[in-house]
Amino acid sequence: MALDMRRVIDPDTYFDHNSPPTNLGWAHDEVDKFIKAQSPDQRIVLVTSGGTTVPLENNTVRFVDNFSAGTRGSCSAEQFLAMGYAVIFLYREQSLQPFNRNYSHNTKGVLSFLERTNGQIRIKPEWEEKMGQDLDNYQKYTQENKLLMVNFTTLSDYLFLLREVSLLVASLGPRVMFYLAAAVSDFFIPSHSLSEHKIQSATGDLTLHMNQVPKFLRPLVKNWAPLCFIVSFKLETDPELLGPKARHALEKYGHQVVIANMLHTRKFQVWLFTKEEAMRPAVIQISQDDLDAGRDIEQDLVEELARRHQQYISSTLQQD
Amino acid sequence: MALDMRRVIDPDTYFDHNSPPTNLGWAHDEVDKFIKAQSPDQRIVLVTSGGTTVPLENNTVRFVDNFSAGTRGSCSAEQFLAMGYAVIFLYREQSLQPFNRNYSHNTKGVLSFLERTNGQIRIKPEWEEKMGQDLDNYQKYTQENKLLMVNFTTLSDYLFLLREVSLLVASLGPRVMFYLAAAVSDFFIPSHSLSEHKIQSATGDLTLHMNQVPKFLRPLVKNWAPLCFIVSFKLETDPELLGPKARHALEKYGHQVVIANMLHTRKFQVWLFTKEEAMRPAVIQISQDDLDAGRDIEQDLVEELARRHQQYISSTLQQD
Repeated sequence: MALDMRRVIDPDTYFDHNSPPTNLGWAHDEVDKFIKAQSPDQRIVLVTSGGTTVPLENNTVRFVDNFSAGTRGSCSAEQFLAMGYAVIFLYREQSLQPFNRNYSHNTKGVLSFLERTNGQIRIKPEWEEKMGQDLDNYQKYTQENKLLMVNFTTLSDYLFLLREVSLLVASLGPRVMFYLAAAVSDFFIPSHSLSEHKIQSATGDLTLHMNQVPKFLRPLVKNWAPLCFIVSFKLETDPELLGPKARHALEKYGHQVVIANMLHTRKFQVWLFTKEEAMRPAVIQISQDDLDAGRDIEQDLVEELARRHQQYISSTLQQD
Repeated sequence: MALDMRRVIDPDTYFDHNSPPTNLGWAHDEVDKFIKAQSPDQRIVLVTSGGTTVPLENNTVRFVDNFSAGTRGSCSAEQFLAMGYAVIFLYREQSLQPFNRNYSHNTKGVLSFLERTNGQIRIKPEWEEKMGQDLDNYQKYTQENKLLMVNFTTLSDYLFLLREVSLLVASLGPRVMFYLAAAVSDFFIPSHSLSEHKIQSATGDLTLHMNQVPKFLRPLVKNWAPLCFIVSFKLETDPELLGPKARHALEKYGHQVVIANMLHTRKFQVWLFTKEEAMRPAVIQISQDDLDAGRDIEQDLVEELARRHQQYISSTLQQD
């Protein structure tokens, strides 16, 4: 174990050996403008969403991906907006976006929402109200500087952008929440050992050696944004591992909340682990009936987190 | 080399060791109905499109993916329809679909095509004509039984569906074209050696052993659909390999056409390799100006293939 851990590079080394994404400068300027546009007591949340890719080739034909459509993140972003938060939405390109999410991943495609009536092309009557609401919300929040969208594709893009945004919002302290719902790869191929061209299949089997990604939660909590309220996620498929891993993360990184969830029940049930409730995590769950009726578990989850965030803000104010 | 090749399992073994997709029965029935609805001289094309995934875990959190948005396939499907073909579109779930493709992968989302005018939610005037045309085309071709959509996600889904469709259309002989534009993985992890649960990162590095996928073009050409007109694709990033690999595929499998293209110029330039033109492949190319003006290379490519397909049909009729 000790031997293995020594092979994990530290986060700074990772940044030294990888190139920043092309939108890093743009993201810096936009986030800077965005936070300056907020009132002094505005609560802000950084929501990360979707999976990161790990390219197997420099001229990328193949990549390792993490399963995530971005449902949790995009739905939660809507809830945070409804609760008065300003939202920086750091999302995987082509994953679900707030308000657009109800239409973009429909398997029948966008045109299935349209019809031709009396020669005119229009939205089907049954969709008019919902699409109208979503459009109004999307435009309102964007125009009022309450929603900023920043996109990534690769693991490296994500990590550079996460650090950049963290350092920018850090000075705002406790009123910033991190809601780290993105499915971030645990393994990567160092860029110097990437294949330059498409890996050829004629030579038989393929063996891929991947290195462990350094745990960026550590510098995030310790150095980048030490005063902020940080919520991380733990997704597992083996129920035996869920509690121990959530507790281990809290101890190791010292942040505020771990949301633990199982792959196959994540839409119905999540557990909130905190230092104080490490052995008795709060459970948030909804029924199949609720889900069928269009209710999302993110509504309850975000309400609960906003409540705890408010307590955190109050308690840090009292300490001043 | 010989040693390596012996490690590649044969296609039948692959099917014995993997489970069929849940939509296989549905696809069988739909394709059967679709081809029975065609007139006796109707030309039919099977277009495959998008990339296949290879899960790294049985409870899938991670997978290896092939870069492909489905642009070539979805755009070509539209061209085949315009030229009078009936199209079976075998595509990766969430990849681009014919007619819907212009709206679904827009980075600003679906709602960016809408506006509210006088309280009414409607399509922006600048998009009305184009969306109207696409909707009319999509509905016309679907209702007239000229377009059938069948979706896959994993490599295994794709291979089962490809075999099923091939065996169904094979009896129609030369008037069926295969246009195999999907980006199919060359490597897979046998299901018996898949990790049951999410791979844990605490133990250090990750080494993945992947086996070579058997070359399904061989049984497709030889056994499944020996009388059909088969077009395969070769995508490379190293220009030195493109010609040799295209010629090698033609020799090895004995089918009709290999479309060769380079990752970074595939929207401007493709080469058509045939047995007769193995050393002098036909080049199809368009300029940046053409592309900017909304012209796609698939228009020229599909026209050329339809012409060659017609010659193929005529020559096989003369042999009868």
